[in-house]
Amino acid sequence: MRYKITLDYVGTAYHGWQHQNGQDTVQDRCESALESLFNKKIKLHASGRTDAGVHALGQTAHFDAEKELPIKSVVGGLNHFLPLDIRVRKCEIVDSDFHARKSVVKKTYMYLLYQGDADSAVYHNRATRVYGNLDIDLMSDAAKVFLGKHDFVSFMSTGSSVKTTVREVYLLDIIKDGDLIKIFISANGFLYNMVRLIVAQLIKAGKGEVSPDEIKMLIDKRDKDVVKLCASASGLYLYSVEYQTTASEE
Amino acid sequence: MRYKITLDYVGTAYHGWQHQNGQDTVQDRCESALESLFNKKIKLHASGRTDAGVHALGQTAHFDAEKELPIKSVVGGLNHFLPLDIRVRKCEIVDSDFHARKSVVKKTYMYLLYQGDADSAVYHNRATRVYGNLDIDLMSDAAKVFLGKHDFVSFMSTGSSVKTTVREVYLLDIIKDGDLIKIFISANGFLYNMVRLIVAQLIKAGKGEVSPDEIKMLIDKRDKDVVKLCASASGLYLYSVEYQTTASEE
Repeated sequence: MRYKITLDYVGTAYHGWQHQNGQDTVQDRCESALESLFNKKIKLHASGRTDAGVHALGQTAHFDAEKELPIKSVVGGLNHFLPLDIRVRKCEIVDSDFHARKSVVKKTYMYLLYQGDADSAVYHNRATRVYGNLDIDLMSDAAKVFLGKHDFVSFMSTGSSVKTTVREVYLLDIIKDGDLIKIFISANGFLYNMVRLIVAQLIKAGKGEVSPDEIKMLIDKRDKDVVKLCASASGLYLYSVEYQTTASEE
Repeated sequence: MRYKITLDYVGTAYHGWQHQNGQDTVQDRCESALESLFNKKIKLHASGRTDAGVHALGQTAHFDAEKELPIKSVVGGLNHFLPLDIRVRKCEIVDSDFHARKSVVKKTYMYLLYQGDADSAVYHNRATRVYGNLDIDLMSDAAKVFLGKHDFVSFMSTGSSVKTTVREVYLLDIIKDGDLIKIFISANGFLYNMVRLIVAQLIKAGKGEVSPDEIKMLIDKRDKDVVKLCASASGLYLYSVEYQTTASEE
């Protein structure tokens, strides 16, 4: 029996998604809850890692278990064993060929920025503060450069091995919402730190410090050492993960 | 020298704004920070109280101090002594006839709802979960009933003494934003629990459990015992406070 779960978490307290010896991670917490619920060690496969301090509104993962539990008992049971900053929001039974990472067709991240001369309590660890004013129009102009299929190797941090560095960005929207600026980015996949490296350039663009043409040149250089500035983890949310396979929802 | 400060806080850890013997309140924390900064007991006057668990994005308050400190030193100094879930975001020097409560011309609250079959980690204590689906159009129709000048005594909890229970609601917007529903309400003032009592009726309206006409009848009854259902504190944010007096900004 293959189960797909959708979960959200506040990443502040965790060393990211993936298991690391001696560190408290979201994966470890979830696998520990699975073991408590199913009385068995169960491996959980996520749509991808999130780094330390990064949040998720719609992380997805799958696991296999022989025991067939009602969907609601999986949600309720896992949440019973999980800390309050990790919640399973949904559970579905999926086909055995569904894979939380390999079957992904589209991923969306949200990045939250706020402008201010001083820190915020409500946005502490939930959004990234930007000094000075950002021009939304300049940011939107710069965003267009990233749309479409490109070799994004310039927007990848070292430390990851991937077959190809070509990704297709479907959407990159900049939305002003009160004192927040929300950045939504969708693609068929993301390279390591790609969103945070893009956001850092969008912030520079919003301050008039870099032009769309200059950003285009950075992409065209296809050099992973050319973009170093990386926006903070605390403003980043894995927003949603989409699959072609329609899971049989309850 | 009269100072006006604008602050935000996550209300979860506090027994509301106002000083209460033996309780940890936002006012106590701020006055303690003021005493540390100015080496003197200083009374802080807010635009109004917020209840236990209620948050603020733009609470305002004023205080008097003989010592003249640079604006930036007040912001930085207070934040140095305050916990991270309370932040002073702005400080202004104002005329001596400015009063954070009495000079208010408009207050805006935001209420956050999310729909879901299970709890959320990201929205835990930050938004209120609603079971089942809410119809935004039905909610917006019901919202119209509250607009304008009314005697809102039916939408007041006991425990407050006010000269008049007439208030004018300028705006009541229901906005869908991802899996959140945001409710913005602006008025020249609010009675005790007025926003939370209104939100509870809007939720019922969104489920088709109460019609705009029935809500109008509740208002017209002018009876403070007629509306009992009150939405949770944890979804409520004091969003902004506006004054006619233009403070001399830095």
